[in-house]
Formats: sequence, structure tokens, C-alpha cells
Amino acid sequence: MSALRVVLVAPRNPLNIGAAARAMSNFGLGELRLVNPYEVAFREARSAVKAQRILAEAQEFSTLGEAVADCAVVVGTTSKGHRVLEHPLRRLELGGKIIAKKLATAPVALLFGSEKFGLSNDDMSHCHWLLRIPTREEHGSMNLGQSVAVCLYEIIRNPAAAKATPEPRRAADAAELDRITALLEQVLEQSGYVHARIESSTRMKIRRLVHRMNLEAHDAEVWLGMLRQILWKFSAAADAAGERSR
Amino acid sequence: MSALRVVLVAPRNPLNIGAAARAMSNFGLGELRLVNPYEVAFREARSAVKAQRILAEAQEFSTLGEAVADCAVVVGTTSKGHRVLEHPLRRLELGGKIIAKKLATAPVALLFGSEKFGLSNDDMSHCHWLLRIPTREEHGSMNLGQSVAVCLYEIIRNPAAAKATPEPRRAADAAELDRITALLEQVLEQSGYVHARIESSTRMKIRRLVHRMNLEAHDAEVWLGMLRQILWKFSAAADAAGERSR
Repeated sequence: MSALRVVLVAPRNPLNIGAAARAMSNFGLGELRLVNPYEVAFREARSAVKAQRILAEAQEFSTLGEAVADCAVVVGTTSKGHRVLEHPLRRLELGGKIIAKKLATAPVALLFGSEKFGLSNDDMSHCHWLLRIPTREEHGSMNLGQSVAVCLYEIIRNPAAAKATPEPRRAADAAELDRITALLEQVLEQSGYVHARIESSTRMKIRRLVHRMNLEAHDAEVWLGMLRQILWKFSAAADAAGERSR
Repeated sequence: MSALRVVLVAPRNPLNIGAAARAMSNFGLGELRLVNPYEVAFREARSAVKAQRILAEAQEFSTLGEAVADCAVVVGTTSKGHRVLEHPLRRLELGGKIIAKKLATAPVALLFGSEKFGLSNDDMSHCHWLLRIPTREEHGSMNLGQSVAVCLYEIIRNPAAAKATPEPRRAADAAELDRITALLEQVLEQSGYVHARIESSTRMKIRRLVHRMNLEAHDAEVWLGMLRQILWKFSAAADAAGERSR
């Protein structure tokens, strides 16, 4: 993954350079290269939170050709929706996958143009193909730091890992749901929510209501405790009333 | 897609609020809501390039409960890798898909905590589940504007559309490659790169070399033109030499 070279061509705002470094650190990806940065003091950019090392190690070049000399594939980013300059244009969903695959065997340069003008025609002539983040046609131009973050996210994106995330909580079993249903029936009877003894059609409604709660085992315990406490309060109140009336 | 509510809880830096608005405009997604922003003058944030309308229409709330009152699903973002606070935790690759699906039928709130502290335990208790951008464990915390951009990108991400992008350029056909091979042979003979008449093994090498160029039809034309010009120059030079020697 360190085979990715994030190349900022003529960036103007040190905050954006720092933000690019921060995203690279967040996603553990890439080596930062700068072609003719406008502001020489970019290495102190405060936006590079916890990514100062990446800024410190960033290499500066005076031409794009030198900056990408060791790269097997050079990809330029553009906000233009149409085909630009006779280059193949790929949306990020597909282009990111191609870059991720290529990185296993060879260095790849990913180019971002200046905040104001993007990549020039001359810059693009160094590219094998162009990449477009799927923004709206009406507002294609993204902030530099944000577009670096989005591209790097697509490159490290891993749906397989996302699916493997454990969801280790045990669902409540039918016996627990039955206990809740039974206690809830008692609470509804004793509170007067239902008039007399519960009929079987009402019982079914209550059981379905409880099943729809999609309870986890831990939460089932909590509900059982709450219902027991309500029943205890009913009987304590009844006892107190009985004593007073004695 | 406007059913998404991007809720910034106690954001401090107006630049980040503007950057969030810009990403929302880029991806055509969401309604901005703010809970107790630290800086009241956020509506003038210059970072909201071309997204001033979103900032102007942003709603302010004094409690998170009010900000998400109309939402069917409330999702909190966190940079913590482990399960937090008894909430289900999903990686963005999967969580973004779930949000995109849900948005078709109901409003969904996506919560981002303050730059310094993230979402509090109290904030998280309003959430149905938590979302994590797959950053490195060692540097999980992203810039607020960048994390909004990455989340929105995942929600609008559409691999099917990416594959549909046309690649309309015609590859050169075999006849064109043969013409190039033939002209290149002549150039190599006349320039002295090969000694005498080309042998068939050399001819095969040249043909394979030409095939490996993966030429598009347009570029094949250009190469044919260049080779013809080189041959013309050879014969013109020979004529001139012949005249001089006469």
C-alpha cells in the first residue's frame, strides 16, 4: 500500500496539504509528493493532525515528470464528467479497484491538481488514464483534502472485512420471550389496561408485539426485571391499601 | 436522497461545517442540521464553496433529540475500532449500503460528533447503531469535513454506474497492425537497425512488438503517418545525396 504516491500538483493551501497527509495516515496509504507547492511553509500545516511524519517526509519536485518517474501507472483526478483530452475516464468505484490491484505489483501515482484549476492539459498528458469521483455534474469540484480522503477510502475499501465484523450479541430465545409475554400479560391485567382475564386473541397480539421487539438476550433480562418490579409495586400497593382499610 | 439528515453535534470549526456542506452539495445528498454549534457565525464559512445554500438552510437545534425527532433511523459515527457502548457497530462499506437502502423509505440521521471529542455517550444513546470508517487502529480520528465526504461517497457509491461508463475507443484491427509492422520493417532496414533483408524470425519479433502496443485505431493512424514520414525523409536524403554525387 506504500506503493501509492499521492502527488499534489501546485497545491496552494497548506491546510489542504496537511489534510491530505492526515487522510493518508488515517487510511495507512501512500507516500506524499508535491510538485511546485505554492506555499513553502506547508510542512508546518496544523491540519496534518497526527500525520506530521508524512508531511516531514514529503518529497518536492519541480516537474511532474520527475515526481512520477518511478511509477508504472499514472492516474489523474478530474471533476469533469465528460471524456477529457482523449484519455480513458473511469469512475472512482471502478478506478479505485484497478489502482488497488495494481499496487500489489507496481508503484502507482495518483495526481490531484491545484485547488483552483485542477490538472492542466500538460499534467494530464503524463497520465495513463483519468479518475472521476462521482459528484453531481452541477457541482463537481471537491475540496482537495476531501477528494484525497474519498479516493484513498475507495482504495482501502474492503466489503469482505466489513461483512466479517462480528455481531456477537445473542438474540433472546423463545423461552425468554414467553416469560416476557406472560409477565406483560399480568401487568396489563393488574394495571387495568385489559378489562378482565386476557382472551387468547389478545394473548396472541401481545406475543406478536413482544416478538417484534427483536430483543437481545441481555435486553430480555432487563425487560423481565422491569416487569417484575412493576408487578411487585402493584402487590405492595395492594397490601398497603389492604392494611389501611383494616 | 434528501431524506438523509447530516447532523453535526457541537461542531467547533466553521471551516469544517462549510466543508461538510460542500461535500453534501458535491454528492447531492442530505439536509444539514447542527446541534449547539460552538461558533455562531458558521453560516459565512468560506469553505462551503458553492454550497452556501445548504449552509443558509441548515437548521439549528439545542438538543440532539429534537434534531433527529423525524428520523426513523439514527446512526452515529465513531472512530473507535472496538464495540462501543453496547451498540451494534458496522463498518462503512456495509453500513453505508444499509443507510442508502433505508433512505428510499424513511429519513435517516447520520451523526458526527465534535472535532475534539466525537459523540458523547449521551449522544450515542440516541442511536440505533454506530458506523465506523475503516481507518487504521493507530490513527482512527479523521477530520470532520473529510469524514462527512467519505460517508456520503459510500452512500451514493454505485458500482453498476461505474461499469456502465463507456470506453468508446475502437482498438486498431489486425490489418492496421500489419501495415504498421510492414512500415516499421522498412524503417529498420533503411536505417540500418537490422543489417540486411529481415528474416522471418525477426519479422515475428517485430509483429509481436507492434501487437504489444495495444494500439487504438486513432493512434495506429498516427504511427502509420510517422513511419511514412520517416521513410519519405530517408528517400529524400538519398535523392539529395544522389544529386550531390552526380
